[in-house]
Parts: sequence; C-alpha cells; structure tokens
Amino acid sequence: RPQEEPTRVTHTVMPARPGDPSAKTGAPARAREKSLTVATLNPQVKAVEYAVRGPIVLKAGDIERRLLQGEKLSFTDVIKANIGDAHAMGQQPITFLRQVVALCCFPELLSSPAFPDDAKQRAQRILQDCGGQSIGSYSASQGLQCIRRDVADYITHRDQGVPSDWNNVYLTTGASDGIMSILKLVVSGRGPSRTGVMIPIPQYPLYSAAISELDAVHINYYLDEDNCWALDIEELQRAYLDAKLHCQPRVLCIINPGNPTGQVQTKKCIEEVLHFAYEENLLVMADEVYQDNVYLPDCQFHSFKKVLYEMGPEYFNGVELVSFHSTSKGFTGECGFRGGYMEVLNMDPQVEAQLVKLLSVRLCPPVPGQAAMDVIVNPPKEHEPSYAQFTKEKSSVLDVLAHKAKLTEQFLNSVPGIKCNPVQGAMYAFPQIFIPPRAIQEAQSLSMAPDMLYCLRLLEETGICVVPGSGFGQREGTFHFRMTILPSPEKLQVLLGQLKGFHLRFLEEYSQEEPDSSRASEQPD
Amino acid sequence: RPQEEPTRVTHTVMPARPGDPSAKTGAPARAREKSLTVATLNPQVKAVEYAVRGPIVLKAGDIERRLLQGEKLSFTDVIKANIGDAHAMGQQPITFLRQVVALCCFPELLSSPAFPDDAKQRAQRILQDCGGQSIGSYSASQGLQCIRRDVADYITHRDQGVPSDWNNVYLTTGASDGIMSILKLVVSGRGPSRTGVMIPIPQYPLYSAAISELDAVHINYYLDEDNCWALDIEELQRAYLDAKLHCQPRVLCIINPGNPTGQVQTKKCIEEVLHFAYEENLLVMADEVYQDNVYLPDCQFHSFKKVLYEMGPEYFNGVELVSFHSTSKGFTGECGFRGGYMEVLNMDPQVEAQLVKLLSVRLCPPVPGQAAMDVIVNPPKEHEPSYAQFTKEKSSVLDVLAHKAKLTEQFLNSVPGIKCNPVQGAMYAFPQIFIPPRAIQEAQSLSMAPDMLYCLRLLEETGICVVPGSGFGQREGTFHFRMTILPSPEKLQVLLGQLKGFHLRFLEEYSQEEPDSSRASEQPD
Repeated sequence: RPQEEPTRVTHTVMPARPGDPSAKTGAPARAREKSLTVATLNPQVKAVEYAVRGPIVLKAGDIERRLLQGEKLSFTDVIKANIGDAHAMGQQPITFLRQVVALCCFPELLSSPAFPDDAKQRAQRILQDCGGQSIGSYSASQGLQCIRRDVADYITHRDQGVPSDWNNVYLTTGASDGIMSILKLVVSGRGPSRTGVMIPIPQYPLYSAAISELDAVHINYYLDEDNCWALDIEELQRAYLDAKLHCQPRVLCIINPGNPTGQVQTKKCIEEVLHFAYEENLLVMADEVYQDNVYLPDCQFHSFKKVLYEMGPEYFNGVELVSFHSTSKGFTGECGFRGGYMEVLNMDPQVEAQLVKLLSVRLCPPVPGQAAMDVIVNPPKEHEPSYAQFTKEKSSVLDVLAHKAKLTEQFLNSVPGIKCNPVQGAMYAFPQIFIPPRAIQEAQSLSMAPDMLYCLRLLEETGICVVPGSGFGQREGTFHFRMTILPSPEKLQVLLGQLKGFHLRFLEEYSQEEPDSSRASEQPD
Repeated sequence: RPQEEPTRVTHTVMPARPGDPSAKTGAPARAREKSLTVATLNPQVKAVEYAVRGPIVLKAGDIERRLLQGEKLSFTDVIKANIGDAHAMGQQPITFLRQVVALCCFPELLSSPAFPDDAKQRAQRILQDCGGQSIGSYSASQGLQCIRRDVADYITHRDQGVPSDWNNVYLTTGASDGIMSILKLVVSGRGPSRTGVMIPIPQYPLYSAAISELDAVHINYYLDEDNCWALDIEELQRAYLDAKLHCQPRVLCIINPGNPTGQVQTKKCIEEVLHFAYEENLLVMADEVYQDNVYLPDCQFHSFKKVLYEMGPEYFNGVELVSFHSTSKGFTGECGFRGGYMEVLNMDPQVEAQLVKLLSVRLCPPVPGQAAMDVIVNPPKEHEPSYAQFTKEKSSVLDVLAHKAKLTEQFLNSVPGIKCNPVQGAMYAFPQIFIPPRAIQEAQSLSMAPDMLYCLRLLEETGICVVPGSGFGQREGTFHFRMTILPSPEKLQVLLGQLKGFHLRFLEEYSQEEPDSSRASEQPD
C-alpha cells in the first residue's frame, strides 16, 4: 500500500478500531478497493458510446485550455463544428422568444413599456396555466396544458388540417428525453425475444447510446450514400429479416431531415416506410427535430403523420407513431433551454398510462423550456406587433443556413478525396473522405478508427473540431466526418480553407513512400 | 373484428394490397393488435410506482375539472398538499433569483436601470461562461464551470472550511436526475450478485421507482417512528445482513432532512452511518435537498461530507459519497426550473469518466436551472445592493415554514387517532393514523391499501389531496399519510380543521356496528 501525501487540512481523527486496515500500517486508506469500479460498473453504461461529446471533444477542451494558458500553437481558436449548438457559434436568439421567457421569469416586467404586448400576452397566458402563476412550480408531467394545446394547433396547421389531439402531446426535456422515454417503454425480453430497434446508419448516436443503455438490440439499416443518403426500402427489409433471426424487431427509428446525413425524405419514401411498419407491426419513432431546416428548393418536409393520414384510415388508425420536435434546432437553436415535445399516435391507452407514470417520476420538463417551445409553435401573428421582427429574424437565420449548406457542399466537393452529398436539410455535412492505406494501417496499429486518426490530426493541426464518421456508423471501408454548418459564413470559409489544406497535407503525407500502397481502397470519385 | 365508426376526415385511401386484412373485410384496422401493449411493455417500467403523482393525484385532477365545469360539491377548491411545490401553494419567488435568470434570458435588460447591479454582475458572469454568451447554447454536460466553482465555494463555506473541488461538482436537472444517474452506474449483476440498494422506509418514492426501473434490489431499512423517525444503526445492519443472502448490497441511500418523515439526523447518527458504510464498502448517496429546511432550534443540519471529514482521512479519503442538492426546495422552491447539483467524492476516476460519458448523452442540464442554482449558492453579499431584500425574503419564507411545521404537528396531535412526530425539517408531516378494522376490511375487499381508502375519502369529501403512507412504505399494520406544510398559514388552518372533521367522521362511521371490530389493532395513542 503506497504511502500517501499527508492531507494538509486539520481534522479530528477517530480512534482506529481493531480490524481497521489503517490501524495496522498507520497509512490512510485512500488506496482501498472502491465499491464502484469499472469492473463492477453497470455493463450497459460501459457499452454506451456518444461520439458527439466523445474523446475528440475532450481533446478540443485540452487544446482550448492550453491556448488560454498562452501556449503558442499554429492556430489561435478551437472551432467547434462537432455539435449542433447554434448560439455557441454566434447565432443570435430570436428576440420574441427571449422576451416571452424573460417575462415569465420576472413578471414585474409585464408592466414595462419596453416589452411588446404580444410577448406580454403570451407570457401571461403561460403564467395563468402555472400553479400559483409561477414558472417555478411543477407543471403536469406531460407539460402545461395551454402549451400542449398550442402544439396540437401547430401540428394541425403544419399538416394542413390533419387533426391533432393535445392529449397526445407531451412536452419533453429536449427531444433526447422523449426518445429515451419511448425506447424505455418498448424494451423487454431476453435472447431471441429481446427487443430490436431499427436505426439508420449513419445515425445520431443518441439512438445507439440509448439502445446500449437499455440493453436492446441495434438493427442497422444503411442509408444509400450514392443516392443522397436516401432510405432504401429493400435495405430496410433486409435488415429486418436478418434481425428476426436473433431478436424481436419492434421499433423503427427514422431521422428526417437526416442527422448526420442532411437528406430530406421524399413523400414516396415515407409512404414506403410507413407501409413497411404497418405490415411488420413496428412502432415508428420519427425524429423530426430539423423540420424547419430544409434548404433546397426542390426538397420539402413531409411529416410522417401527414403522410400516414393520407395513406388512409387503416394506416392512420393502425400505425403506432411517435414524432419528436425540439427548441434546440430549427431557427431558434435554443439548446440550453432543453425544450421539446412528442406527439404519440395510436398508443394503447394502458401503455400511455404507463408512459405518464414513467414521466411523473421525473416530475416535469423544465418550464422555461416549455415556454420557449410555445413561442416556436405559437409565433406572433400577422396583425401582432412583433410579427415583422420575428419574421425577419427567422428568415435571416434560415437564409444564412441555406447559404452555408450550399457553400459547404460545393467547397467540400472541390477538394480531391472528399465527396459530399447535398446538404438538403438539418445542420450538418457528412462528407466521405479518402484515407490512404498507410494512414489506415497507422490507425489500426493505434487501435483507432482511421477517421478518428484523421479528425484528431485535423484538430491538432488546425483547431477544427469535427466528429469521425465511425461515431455515427458507416459502411465498412468508408470514412466520413460530421461537421456542422453553423459557424458564421466568414468563419466557415476560413474553416473550409484550413480543412482543405490539412486534407491535402494528410493525403500527401500518407501517400508518399511504400509504392504498394496503391492497392484497392474505396476512394470516392 | 368490430365495425368502427367511419372516420369523418377526408383522405386518400391507398389501394388495398392482397393479404392486407382490411382488404378482406373493408373494415378499418383500428382494432388490430398493437406492437406495444401492456403484455409487451418493459416489465421494469411496469414495476415502477410513484405515489406522489399517482392515482390520488389523477383523482384530484378529475375533481378539479368537475369543479371548473360548475359541479356543486361540498368544497370549492382542491388543496394539493401532496407535493412539495411551494410556488403552486402561493410562496413567492426570491426576487434576486428571478432577476438574474431574466437578465440571462434577455441580456438587453442589462442596460435597464430597473435591475440592481449585483443581479447584473451575476448574470454577466454566467453569460460570459456560456458559448456565444447565450444561455441558449449547450453547457458542458457537467454544467457551466463558473457555477460549479460557486457550488464548490458554497460547500466549503457551509462546511466551515472542508475543501470542495469544483471538478467533483456536477449540475443536474433537479436532484432526481442526479440520483438516477448515480444509481444507473452501480446497477449490475443477476441473481445473488444483483446490486442491492438500501433505502429508508418510509422513503421518497423516486428511490423505489428508480430501483424498479433499473432492476436492482430494494433493501429496506426502517426508520424508528417511536424515536422521531431516527435512523437506527442496528436496523441498518439487520437489513444489510438479511439482504446479503440474496443480493450484493452496494449503495446506501439517506435522506436528511427526511422526506416524507421530516426528521433531522444527529451528527452522531451520521457518524454511525458513515462508519457502517466504510466497513461494508457501500457507496453513500446523501439526499440533502432539504438542507436549508431545518425548523427546530435544537436541530441542526450536518452534511454527510463534513461529518465524514471530521472522522479523519481514512474515512474522508475512503468512503464513496455523493450528495445532492436542488433549486426546488429550500427557501427558493423553484421546482419548474429543474436545477440541482451533486458533489461526488472518492469516485474511481475511470468510473467518473463513465459518468461524464453517460451525462453527455443527455447533453446538458437546463441552463436557466443552472443559473437559478447559482443564485442559491452565490447569494448577494452583505455589501451588495440586493442583500437586504434577499435576506428578508429568505428569512420570511423559512420563518413561515417553521411556524407551519409547529402548527401542523401540534394540531395533528390534538386529533384522536392521529399521532405526528415533530416536523424538524423538510416540508412534510407524516402522521400515523388509526384506521378502524372495518375500514381495513373494506379496503381489502377493494384490493386497496387502507390508507389509500382513507386518502381517497378525504379527497372526495373535503378536496384535500394528501398521499397515502403506503406510497412511501411503512411498517406493516401502521398507516400514515404525507401532507406538505406549504399552504399559507390561513389555508393550512382551514385544511387542518377539515382534516380533523373528516377524520372524526371516518372513525365514527367505521367504528359503529359490528361490536367485534374492537379487536387488536395498532392505534397510536
């Protein structure tokens, strides 16, 4: 037992008891075995991986600290293009949203002439629905009723009249929380009856993390990179049939617009998916948090619910569908508020009662986040004083995002050894990168995914932080990274320029020598 | 298959395909089997119970709706004394806290003369720590660094110099979220190696719910009702040894001040508990969310950490201890913000890395809740402009609570068949009630806990909503309910009066007839 540094603080030492190990040696017991070690840790927690905040981000934090301490590097800033965190990248909040939340927080401001009447009316309505008219009281576990009603009205309007019942709407702590709650409900069984959850590959790693944590089975269906990351129904069927042999597939997760892949699904594709889900009796989880983030003129967001409705009542009344939205994305980018909602369709009423019970243990979603969600679904109307500014701010955010989506795609495709599908929606580019065989070998010798090696080198040499494709899943032998399109246009230009420089250096470095390194490897283009 | 009402909305029906069941009958498929039913639901979710928002609260909601619809009942209001929701019961927010959060939400207010400088300084400091200086950006998964530092300073000051390292502080989404995360880490094993979690009985049902959800083993240790709900170390040992036979006890949960029982643990008792935890190598979870809610002059809050420190370095460096705090209780009562923190001591660094990973999947705690937590740990200082008002508001809340704690205890003890321990701390009274044998029989015939029958009748006849003791756990043959002391003193007087009236009627009703009903039953006093 190593002798420890003596603790420098004064204290009263209890008399050592017989049998106490420290009594024998006089050494403090700091080295004694812990109750909780990696060996005794919940194995499902161990199995969880979450690349968006993984090792690459820890490394970025280290580099930031070194820069802050005055260390001289070849760059002065870390650019965090790893996470869809719009405000951190300089996007400004929507004024009306913040006015409403501030009024809810400090109702004395309701008498201030500095706040517009429509913001005051929104805040007053929310406060009237709060216990004691305070957002400091718990809401119902499903959220405040007036906001659930606003969400239902918003969905009805968005879907051109398809009815939405506010009783089916649950406010959540961001979309992640809702997704986790639904997955928690469906997980059961052991061995061949274990619940299988179908997820796209590439996927947003919340899904794989949640599936690991809950000890369900991942069923991967691969999106078609050669076809703009479209969902291929035959691949869905293949994955399903393969999985049937060893688990019970019960849930189908869809991300539309795609994360990290940025595709926007066509109506026809959604119909096929819903038809498949109907046939195989799968619960559909439609992650639609990027529903406002569609950039290309020939792309349009179709909600799974509206498409289901248009397929007729045998589908609309048959398929169990949960769709998710969030305050964190769209044009508001309010990640820190942890707001969101889910709409639950065709759920067995007894199961829904169990869902309410499960949610009630966590008491309620944060009420300021609920208020933020309300502004998104109940924005200023044309005749209201904040309409003009709200509309201008909203368009400005979305126009700039559309511009950056185009810019990113075009630039990346101009770099030899990088190939990028159009960023039709969401906030990310997910380009395929050529990694020379020697770099692959080097990564393997370090027990590291080759694109992790690439991203670590990129970070170390340029300060640009992106996430390796291996954190999202990709077809074997292909390599990618996910970068957000959130930096300001000027910063994005700089980022892309530096990325190009790095990429060319990387290719050169690993393509020199060893003339046999030219054997088959999947180089895009 | 029953014929359904035709859906009234128009829709495009997809051509029925061969093999489609609806093609044969023409009937819509609403009645087809669900993918997710109570039979296929996650059995661990099914096992979860959470009385604080359980059937009695659903019933209270029903009654409220009936009252709103103009139905005439013998009362005009439902009084929700079921949940520690201070603002809902009329407690006013602390002005300074709301000012700081409003300034963070809408930084334009930083130039408003209506806000005091100290509130502005707090808000500016928080904003400077936020990405893009916006509380709409994600914070680190552990929370904003400046707030974690403030928490560490607060703990050091509270514990009279016992050092606290901000790296051990994690901000959380209320205390519940932190408790759940820690429990998630420690759960593992099957059969006799399954993780056992020791919880007090009576307990706050978050614990039993989390243990069920995670499929761990409940190990109940009973608090000593005859001794002011003190924790009896021999009972702890008994429970441990019994449990050892069929599981691996690895965690000891303590709630101090107690919920629902309101006791404040003595320093000697805490020493004994920590000694026991050291000996048996148990991770200690100290739920200290009521640390500011201590009412009796001869009671004092001792943090588990400080007591551990005073036991000497072999303990202070040996026992794995996690303590929890929250914005929801204390003198702020800001439940809706979902703010809290935990301090983690002596955790294996590899396990701590796993904790960070687990937290990162949920991205971050709500930032407005983090800001609220900051005000609690970093209140206005004596020389600052908001000090006087803050101090006055804080004392006022705590003085009124102390008054109501005394009032409730005294009143309840004046009612025949009710016996209540002193409410030393927290926000609840947990009186024992005598339930006549005939009422017990009636409840049993309804497959209902006798105190559930009592509480339902109380709700139906008076509009008072309290939670049956069976939802918290109690010694067999004893019956209790938990009521908060949060209604205003006037309302509390009325509530207690109505409760007394009900109780006497209930006793009379069930004690009449059947002369053999006088057989042994545990009537307190």
